[in-house]
Amino acid sequence: MHPEKPVANKLFMNSKFGFEVLHEDTGTNARRGILHTPHGDIPTPVFMPVGTAGAVKAMPGQVLESLDARIILANTYHLFLRPGHERIEKLGGLHRFMSWDGAILTDSGGYQVFSHRELCRISEEGVEFRSHIDGSKNFISPEKAIDIQNSLGSDIAMVFDDCTPYPSGYTDAESSMELSMRWARRCFEHWKRTDDGSRGLFGIVQGSVYPDLRKRSATMLADMGFSGTAIGGLSVGEPKDVMGEIVECTVPLLPRDRPRYLMGVGTPEDLIRSVAMGVDMFDCVLPTRNARNGCLFTSRGKILIKNAAYAEDPDPLDPDCSCQTCRNFSRAYLRHLFLAGEYLSAFYNTVHNLTFYLDMMRKIREAIELGNFGNWLEQMKKEDRK
Amino acid sequence: MHPEKPVANKLFMNSKFGFEVLHEDTGTNARRGILHTPHGDIPTPVFMPVGTAGAVKAMPGQVLESLDARIILANTYHLFLRPGHERIEKLGGLHRFMSWDGAILTDSGGYQVFSHRELCRISEEGVEFRSHIDGSKNFISPEKAIDIQNSLGSDIAMVFDDCTPYPSGYTDAESSMELSMRWARRCFEHWKRTDDGSRGLFGIVQGSVYPDLRKRSATMLADMGFSGTAIGGLSVGEPKDVMGEIVECTVPLLPRDRPRYLMGVGTPEDLIRSVAMGVDMFDCVLPTRNARNGCLFTSRGKILIKNAAYAEDPDPLDPDCSCQTCRNFSRAYLRHLFLAGEYLSAFYNTVHNLTFYLDMMRKIREAIELGNFGNWLEQMKKEDRK
Repeated sequence: MHPEKPVANKLFMNSKFGFEVLHEDTGTNARRGILHTPHGDIPTPVFMPVGTAGAVKAMPGQVLESLDARIILANTYHLFLRPGHERIEKLGGLHRFMSWDGAILTDSGGYQVFSHRELCRISEEGVEFRSHIDGSKNFISPEKAIDIQNSLGSDIAMVFDDCTPYPSGYTDAESSMELSMRWARRCFEHWKRTDDGSRGLFGIVQGSVYPDLRKRSATMLADMGFSGTAIGGLSVGEPKDVMGEIVECTVPLLPRDRPRYLMGVGTPEDLIRSVAMGVDMFDCVLPTRNARNGCLFTSRGKILIKNAAYAEDPDPLDPDCSCQTCRNFSRAYLRHLFLAGEYLSAFYNTVHNLTFYLDMMRKIREAIELGNFGNWLEQMKKEDRK
Repeated sequence: MHPEKPVANKLFMNSKFGFEVLHEDTGTNARRGILHTPHGDIPTPVFMPVGTAGAVKAMPGQVLESLDARIILANTYHLFLRPGHERIEKLGGLHRFMSWDGAILTDSGGYQVFSHRELCRISEEGVEFRSHIDGSKNFISPEKAIDIQNSLGSDIAMVFDDCTPYPSGYTDAESSMELSMRWARRCFEHWKRTDDGSRGLFGIVQGSVYPDLRKRSATMLADMGFSGTAIGGLSVGEPKDVMGEIVECTVPLLPRDRPRYLMGVGTPEDLIRSVAMGVDMFDCVLPTRNARNGCLFTSRGKILIKNAAYAEDPDPLDPDCSCQTCRNFSRAYLRHLFLAGEYLSAFYNTVHNLTFYLDMMRKIREAIELGNFGNWLEQMKKEDRK
């Protein structure tokens, strides 16, 4: 089940960017590490709140900081279209633009470009696509994706990939994956030309739901020498167990001394399971988007705050939570804000959901350190069967 | 011009509610005072941010507190319809419901009820109206308006009045004012029955743009013995100079030992001019609503943040402002958030505009204390003529 464990404290380090595995779980493949970036050290496993347009939705940076979020994700596609990466560069880069001193990972834009596949023209060179904002024609190549991310000044850049749609037949998935791998090499080569060792570039494994394609992709990326590896193209509609199988067969092929990042995932259960398989990093819109839709994560399950059951409920969302929302407000008040369409509904709900996610990751890290992560996992599975 | 000055430090005080005039300006009718409430002392002149539905829009209570806001306004009409005053009472009252430890003034609902006059049926007894939320039929009488405000538990309640529409002919304005005065007496009598001296009830002067009606109304209210007096029915479309004339002729007739409150007003210039006429309290949606619409008040005039001129502007909104928005963000970033429709646009803009208003009131209070408020007023008039 669990292949031989490498020595802990193994360190991969460029001048300012690196990764350190501090502790490996014995019962699972979970690991506790530190990601070193020019904008601070980040304990892993880590969840990265999503700040699509240079702002985590409904979440002031100061509050995010107070929750001890150390790294966020920003979307290259959105920032490229508006306000434009050159404008952000002129204004001192994305950190300064959004006044965020923590680390930033930028995706490459691939996922967003391809989310309207019918509006794209893909060639070996890159992708031509229309802006969702003004319909203008744009072109992104692997090299340009790196240039844009350099302009933004993110701490971690991602390769530009062809995010294979789900479902895809084997042949389509294979050629899409192979294109992604050629693009990954071009990204890597282009990045190498300007890299000063201070920032990271991650490759992205593709291959849809086909284990052998995933393995080929993972092996090719491992050979190139990226600073970390992401698993892409999941959480796009495939069944949960398929996602689990793909992660399980892919992770062992990823470099053990580099961070492993499962893109766009997921539910609290997804995160815990994937940590057990050896994943170090996550991002997902779920906590922030659900918050705005009035769906709240608690230690006792999900709450849909608009439900009439909460109309006169004086209790906090989650009695086990110490966020400012739970410390100050009743479910009845949060329901009222939601029904009244108040801005503060989005704000207080987001504070809570992000606190829930970040607290969960903190507990996961502690459990790995204390060597009882496996027990926790069992406990969770038991609760699932209830 | 300025009638004889009463002794400063004059104190009107019930067991927990009262008002104290600390200092009167010599060149104008401005006064510096303290409003004593069960939820703290409030230095006057004061601006009250509007928290319509039990929440100042886009403004977390903690941030409001950090701006040293000591009193907010909540709308009885909105809270009566949703979530309902009885529900709020059951949950411990409005302060607890919205987790606000500062003072709360509730309007009586009159203004909102009558804002859709065609949907109302007015009788001597009260007003029947349809909910803007679900179309349900409702009835509010002067007594019920007091009961609702008692349920909410506000520190200052307002009488239920017939807010005379603008424009109105003399006869209509007269009978509307007289109805308001009869209702004011019923409110006062009803309130007296349950009052323990801990909370305030303010009368509201009506009479449209007719000085003699205003004077009659003011005199009638003064005779009843309210804890404070409001001037209502202004800022409803009448020309600015008419508003000024009405305030100027009304204020001298209001009890000098009680707070004077100009309802729903207004621009920074309106506030400064009205303070000079002897007004102590204000509320207005202008700073919060304008913030959400991207219109920002600064020491150098208004800024419409969507303007292309700010696209690459690295400066803060107002170099003289020390709010968290101005300390952290450029105009370029705030423009980006506004155009991208981000929640944070409303939040950061509201922080700034409320800071601008509350700072201005602080400066006004200081100027009155230092005896140079008149100079400041002159300075402002000069800038207006530029």
